Amino acid sequence: MLTQQGCRRRQERLWAAVPQDVDWLLVADPRHVQYLCNFWVQPLSFSGGERGWLLLERNNGTTLLGDNFAIRSAAHDPFVDRESIGAWYDHKHSVINRDHALLNALRQVAGTLKGRAGLIEAEWLPCGALAALEGAEVRYSVEQEEGAADSFDLGTILRSLRRAKEPDEIELLRVCMKGGDAGMARLREILRPGVSEFEIYLEVQHAALAAAGRPGLVYGDFRVTTADNPKAGGLPAGLVLQNGNLFILDYSIVLDGYRSDFTNTMSVGQPSQAIRDMFALCQAGMERAEKTLRAGVRARDVHAAAASPYREAGRAELFTHHAGHGIGLAHPEPPILVPESDDVLVAGDVITLEPGAYEKGIGGMRIEHNYLITQAGYERMSGHVISLE
Amino acid sequence: MLTQQGCRRRQERLWAAVPQDVDWLLVADPRHVQYLCNFWVQPLSFSGGERGWLLLERNNGTTLLGDNFAIRSAAHDPFVDRESIGAWYDHKHSVINRDHALLNALRQVAGTLKGRAGLIEAEWLPCGALAALEGAEVRYSVEQEEGAADSFDLGTILRSLRRAKEPDEIELLRVCMKGGDAGMARLREILRPGVSEFEIYLEVQHAALAAAGRPGLVYGDFRVTTADNPKAGGLPAGLVLQNGNLFILDYSIVLDGYRSDFTNTMSVGQPSQAIRDMFALCQAGMERAEKTLRAGVRARDVHAAAASPYREAGRAELFTHHAGHGIGLAHPEPPILVPESDDVLVAGDVITLEPGAYEKGIGGMRIEHNYLITQAGYERMSGHVISLE
Repeated sequence: MLTQQGCRRRQERLWAAVPQDVDWLLVADPRHVQYLCNFWVQPLSFSGGERGWLLLERNNGTTLLGDNFAIRSAAHDPFVDRESIGAWYDHKHSVINRDHALLNALRQVAGTLKGRAGLIEAEWLPCGALAALEGAEVRYSVEQEEGAADSFDLGTILRSLRRAKEPDEIELLRVCMKGGDAGMARLREILRPGVSEFEIYLEVQHAALAAAGRPGLVYGDFRVTTADNPKAGGLPAGLVLQNGNLFILDYSIVLDGYRSDFTNTMSVGQPSQAIRDMFALCQAGMERAEKTLRAGVRARDVHAAAASPYREAGRAELFTHHAGHGIGLAHPEPPILVPESDDVLVAGDVITLEPGAYEKGIGGMRIEHNYLITQAGYERMSGHVISLE
Repeated sequence: MLTQQGCRRRQERLWAAVPQDVDWLLVADPRHVQYLCNFWVQPLSFSGGERGWLLLERNNGTTLLGDNFAIRSAAHDPFVDRESIGAWYDHKHSVINRDHALLNALRQVAGTLKGRAGLIEAEWLPCGALAALEGAEVRYSVEQEEGAADSFDLGTILRSLRRAKEPDEIELLRVCMKGGDAGMARLREILRPGVSEFEIYLEVQHAALAAAGRPGLVYGDFRVTTADNPKAGGLPAGLVLQNGNLFILDYSIVLDGYRSDFTNTMSVGQPSQAIRDMFALCQAGMERAEKTLRAGVRARDVHAAAASPYREAGRAELFTHHAGHGIGLAHPEPPILVPESDDVLVAGDVITLEPGAYEKGIGGMRIEHNYLITQAGYERMSGHVISLE
């Protein structure tokens, strides 16, 4: 889980990034509430889908807002100075609209904001909250203002801060990776003709969560690809594996909103030489791209490195998608490793490299590792075996 | 999944419930978008946590709004007349703030709303969307207006409509129940001293999803209770079962947002006579409450029936929580079966009955079934065995 020190550090970075005359912030994207104070409504609870908001005041600490059930459905104890709880359900009376209870939590603290300038996260804070903020000097923008020093676009400021991960975020991602590695190992044990995509999903999920040591979400591509259909993706669709198929396992473990994301492709039975050749290109692309990784490098140059072995082999058409992307509280997220990306790698980015190759008449495949970007280079965070067999 | 006919029927009921001079509605709660058009961002996908909005026009059908990746992460094909897609990611360039892409999807259609009266779902539609709606006659309220014929409180109107389920919703709930039954049966196979709460969670999840036939969320109470700690709840906490413990399995399978929710309590080893006596009270409470179930009955009377065996035995203090509640796209939701509830059962309600008993020095237990309320009575939807052994 996130730590108090990590949350404090992220709050400090946030205050340094907003205009100086602003003295309160109201954060409403659930990912950003988690990011700043470790409050995450457990999605595996009866409050899954409900929300809490975080009020930060420059000289008065933090207040978590929520209904009484959502607050108690937190995945972990939040690091806040106080809570404002809207009464929703007391096991004795009928309930009000649960969202109104959340708005009541805001009404309880809004009086203290009157006459003071603040930013709201306007992509997530609902319209219904504005009346509660009457009398406060509410500023917001949903126009991305590149590099603006006095931006009111709180959501974009937070997304930008998310790039450079703090140590507690890295540690949480390591637990996700550990689970991901275990699921990959389980695939190696159970892959055979006759097993279904869905059975693999269930077995991989079981192994991954067992290794992570706690409940979490497991999603990704659990799909057979064939010569006829080299580009299948998404959750299992009911196919049963046959000799000659490839199986792409490209999946994520999500713990407290943070996720790993890595891939291997395995052959059901002996792979053909054409398949082996394509796989070797993927591996060469990954190796070339790895060599470029360090803070300051342009994302487009990482893509170009990943694409270079395909190009040199005269097979550029095999590799059509991104070479990788950032991961963290979302997926994909910047930096985006594509030919015309404007992104530049920063220390603390956690990214994937995921070269693939898809050819009608042959098959489809992809491999992927996860990396922490440092000033000097990178640390590979995923530890699974990448091989066809 | 939900059907086109069911979505159409729910839309008709919604139009009949809003003021007549309103000719567009903008729905933003993800549950309500699903309810009305079968668009559900697969939570087990890289778009989990992202959103789509639904614009309904009285004489111009439905438009789904979203970013290009969220739209393609739908769990099923939505039933809409058209889509307005905000460009977010093209595998070639850096990405913008993903929420801004969603707002762009709204900007693309907002021009047609100018000068026309509409309701927005103000608990969910973000402030940042208001500028896009400039020129339209936007009405909203987040004040619950009980029985008001001309309410602007779209969110509460929708919550009220959700009570009486359509046939497609019932069918989806039946699939959840089938999964729930299978997980309960799995518990019966694996319960023994030495197994951990977390191992039970993994096994139950595996069995439940295998029976449901597709990925979904599994949450609930997977907890040991003891004489010292009779009230444990929530996800597994790491305990290992020992002889003399009770194990409460009170859990839900969520498919496309809809969930079952039922319970059994099992004894690890032979239960004591005191435990058996308490369990018999729970069963008697459930039987008495079942006999009251039909449309038109007051929720408080169902609670009173469930509580009556405890009272008659002079042990009212054993049973302190609700006797049950509605389930569907949330949990708990109305009707709430508590002593001072104002709710009245309606045909199409799907509810739980869940009497429990908790006594320090003895232990804690709960049992629960799910029921569809009809004009004449009820149909029990869950089929698991309720017994201590």
